[in-house]
Amino acid sequence: MDKIRVIEVKKSVYANNDLEANENRDLLKKQNTYMMNLMSSPGSGKTTMLVSTIERLKEKIKIGIVEADIDSDVDAYSISKTGVPVNQLHNGGMCHLDAGMVREGLSDLGAKDLDFVVIENIGNLICPAGYDLGQNLNCMILSVPEGHDKPLKYPKMFTKVDCLIISKVDTVSVFDFDFKALEKSVRKLNPNIKIFPLSAKTGEGMDTWCEYLLNKIESWKQ
Amino acid sequence: MDKIRVIEVKKSVYANNDLEANENRDLLKKQNTYMMNLMSSPGSGKTTMLVSTIERLKEKIKIGIVEADIDSDVDAYSISKTGVPVNQLHNGGMCHLDAGMVREGLSDLGAKDLDFVVIENIGNLICPAGYDLGQNLNCMILSVPEGHDKPLKYPKMFTKVDCLIISKVDTVSVFDFDFKALEKSVRKLNPNIKIFPLSAKTGEGMDTWCEYLLNKIESWKQ
Repeated sequence: MDKIRVIEVKKSVYANNDLEANENRDLLKKQNTYMMNLMSSPGSGKTTMLVSTIERLKEKIKIGIVEADIDSDVDAYSISKTGVPVNQLHNGGMCHLDAGMVREGLSDLGAKDLDFVVIENIGNLICPAGYDLGQNLNCMILSVPEGHDKPLKYPKMFTKVDCLIISKVDTVSVFDFDFKALEKSVRKLNPNIKIFPLSAKTGEGMDTWCEYLLNKIESWKQ
Repeated sequence: MDKIRVIEVKKSVYANNDLEANENRDLLKKQNTYMMNLMSSPGSGKTTMLVSTIERLKEKIKIGIVEADIDSDVDAYSISKTGVPVNQLHNGGMCHLDAGMVREGLSDLGAKDLDFVVIENIGNLICPAGYDLGQNLNCMILSVPEGHDKPLKYPKMFTKVDCLIISKVDTVSVFDFDFKALEKSVRKLNPNIKIFPLSAKTGEGMDTWCEYLLNKIESWKQ
């Protein structure tokens, strides 16, 4: 296994995040690379879901992953076992990624040869919602153990994402999770959101999610 | 049930958080009120653990709770059913509480008549770690479903807290949670941390936790 490349990133010296995000978007369009910004709480299962998604799609499209973390590279190691290119951004304790940091990750990854790049954002349901990275798709994960009341508590995140993955559905018998209540409060904030209940552990729901994702990527690339 | 008092708070106009935190500390000392700052990820079970703690201690000491949230009051309603005074801070989307916000919550709560106040911070493993609120005890919750690798990923939080509650231990058979690995990585960051595995649902570990807490409060108050 190759050593993971770690890139130390800092808050951009240019204060205009939206401008930098648009530059990322233009660059990715030119390269024909679709980018997803993946956000969630700590421990919702972002990396496990990503590994499962990569295994299903890696023979069909060229995938690369930018992992972000404060100070570790455990997730990047997990991803690297799938064989797809991955690097690790360390942002020194910041609570979100900005567009400039993502640019560094993309540049290191050689995103120009890739069909699909995922930015695994810092585990945080608040701060990342305020930063456009230049992504084509904003996706968040809510895990069953976190509870169905989270849209009431973190409304901005639920309002801004295009799709919501409900992860760890294999544990639903252990927790008091009300899918109907969740859907009702999410749709109140975001009527057009796509919702994908799944378990990366058992595989339940993974095919539906991967089919959606592949369609999004392929229709964008045409 | 009384209507929950909601206090809209903003970032303090005074930039010196440490100064305000010290003022909180002085005020609480004068009032003989012990304050705990409770931090965790979203959905780790802060409120459920608090309700269970209050039920065990409310006949012994006078307790009050300050709930913080971006925009909801579901947690404050859950707490209010225990009969102890509670109010709800809304901080308009900020990712942490600061000492000035806490002062407003304490003032509304009438903390001078209370032995013990808990500040339930915003669900976030990063930003709250950077703000002294004037507390006597910093406590964090890590829930079993979040995984044992979190100290590697959120080192600052694990380094600064006095005690760590591992919640939802009743679900350990469903998740791949390695207590030994967790303890090893936590103690590397914070050798003197107290660790309390518990389940508010089954009651396991709750007595040990409450005994520790009561001892802390009573020995401080002497």
